[in-house]
Amino acid sequence: MSTANDRRDSAFAQRLAERAATMETVLADILAERAGQTHPRLLAAMRHAALGGGKRLRPFLTIEAAVLCGAQAESAWLAGAAIELLHCYSLVHDDLPCMDDDDLRRGQPTAHRAFDEATAILAGDALLTLAFEVLADERAHPSPAARAALTLGLARAGGMAGMVGGQMLDLGAEGRWGAASLDVDGVLRLQALKTGALLRFSVEAGGVVAGADAATAARLSRYGAAVGAAFQIADDILDHESDAATLGKRTGKDAAKGKGTLVSLLGLAEARAFCDRLIDEATAALDAFGAEADVLRAAARFVGARRS
Amino acid sequence: MSTANDRRDSAFAQRLAERAATMETVLADILAERAGQTHPRLLAAMRHAALGGGKRLRPFLTIEAAVLCGAQAESAWLAGAAIELLHCYSLVHDDLPCMDDDDLRRGQPTAHRAFDEATAILAGDALLTLAFEVLADERAHPSPAARAALTLGLARAGGMAGMVGGQMLDLGAEGRWGAASLDVDGVLRLQALKTGALLRFSVEAGGVVAGADAATAARLSRYGAAVGAAFQIADDILDHESDAATLGKRTGKDAAKGKGTLVSLLGLAEARAFCDRLIDEATAALDAFGAEADVLRAAARFVGARRS
Repeated sequence: MSTANDRRDSAFAQRLAERAATMETVLADILAERAGQTHPRLLAAMRHAALGGGKRLRPFLTIEAAVLCGAQAESAWLAGAAIELLHCYSLVHDDLPCMDDDDLRRGQPTAHRAFDEATAILAGDALLTLAFEVLADERAHPSPAARAALTLGLARAGGMAGMVGGQMLDLGAEGRWGAASLDVDGVLRLQALKTGALLRFSVEAGGVVAGADAATAARLSRYGAAVGAAFQIADDILDHESDAATLGKRTGKDAAKGKGTLVSLLGLAEARAFCDRLIDEATAALDAFGAEADVLRAAARFVGARRS
Repeated sequence: MSTANDRRDSAFAQRLAERAATMETVLADILAERAGQTHPRLLAAMRHAALGGGKRLRPFLTIEAAVLCGAQAESAWLAGAAIELLHCYSLVHDDLPCMDDDDLRRGQPTAHRAFDEATAILAGDALLTLAFEVLADERAHPSPAARAALTLGLARAGGMAGMVGGQMLDLGAEGRWGAASLDVDGVLRLQALKTGALLRFSVEAGGVVAGADAATAARLSRYGAAVGAAFQIADDILDHESDAATLGKRTGKDAAKGKGTLVSLLGLAEARAFCDRLIDEATAALDAFGAEADVLRAAARFVGARRS
């Protein structure tokens, strides 16, 4: 059983890398199409933020969910790219001096270090806006109803009641606007917004692209919510265990800022067990599917066990 | 003739104020609907940035263009609100210390002064994202095709080849990334992107909401382009002539930064004449319409002659 899983996980790693290479090309093409219409420095900062690295986990989930529901992988490329563009904007803004003040991202200087603060803020704004432009393009999906549904979903996952709201909670958890001590529920709520909402939508978007029925959409949504939660706990565990050389970014920073994480609140062993339960939940959500869902099952295991 | 215009302009001012009051309610409702789902400080900053002032010229143009094309005003409210939300986000980010570094906006402290920089950046991000959420909502327009078209248009007007690209050109014109001396064409290009693209789209969006035919859409587009260009020249003239007490924001700042404006490049009289020609162009684009287009004609005169 374990050997079979190992074999699947190795095949998974290869598939993830292949999809990431494809996504790199799709993102580069999206930016190249618009290269002549904007300020060269803005374009350079957008390319710096959006290209050259990353596992591209979110578009991977979108594409694989679409394929699971019977669509061609190509039909989910632009929806996946839009989600990745939104993710990249969020990293640029989160790294800013007045936010997390990070100098390093994926082993490279962050956008405001490689360029300057104004350029980084505008590059983030442009990537966010571009995400919606890509999603509204009829090449992203021939059906206007699907395009409108994708736009609505992305805006909700990324906005005040999703990612941006989560980042605000995260800054508040540092105590910068008065006392703030999060308990386990508070941390889970923060994580569900800051990273969970977009990961969940990444999976749901695949169902929208493929025109999945309501029961299938509900399964994808449960899977996406569990994977999204597991992702962030795994991130906390990584932050606790890794060093910057492995991770390509500063580590231990949550602890340094006195922010509670599930690791500091529950201890490493219980956080690990909690993460494992979420992976089980994610795979259980796929029980109605057969072997065709093995890629998403492996993705859940990968998210729970990732090392970078 | 002049008396008839004066009478129309007075009726126009009343109509603009009424529409602005309506838009204030629409915007307040949009934020209130989501009040329980986000961080209170983020919501407060979004309210600070989006409510309590402004002529609401952009949604006014959207609503009046829709009415001109036979739609009910109500059908354009949410599209207009989305455009205004995007406009408000751009003001918040433009005012930031690393951008224009402004302390005053509409006679109030700018968002980063009233709150803090991180909150201001996130409030801007959330307003931008909310613009697309509002536009993709089926209440904004029952037709998914119209919603997708509005999303695409707003993203293009606001993004790297529109407003954000224009802001980047504007910062570059200060010489912060090397020598930069704009000639008249350079200034016009900058303005067409930074403020022109969104004003033009504000008018076009009314046509999309109303399902205007291609010939009508082209007329609206010509009108919107001319009004957008006139708006910015009038702004330069205002910046040259006014004092902060009238305008509710810092003035003379372009000259202080050594940035060329049409006033500094052409002189006041010629800039004024250029603006007048654009107003004529705008009204000429409406020649196919009868008295039903008088509101948009008055809007063009208002934009050219505004004092704040």
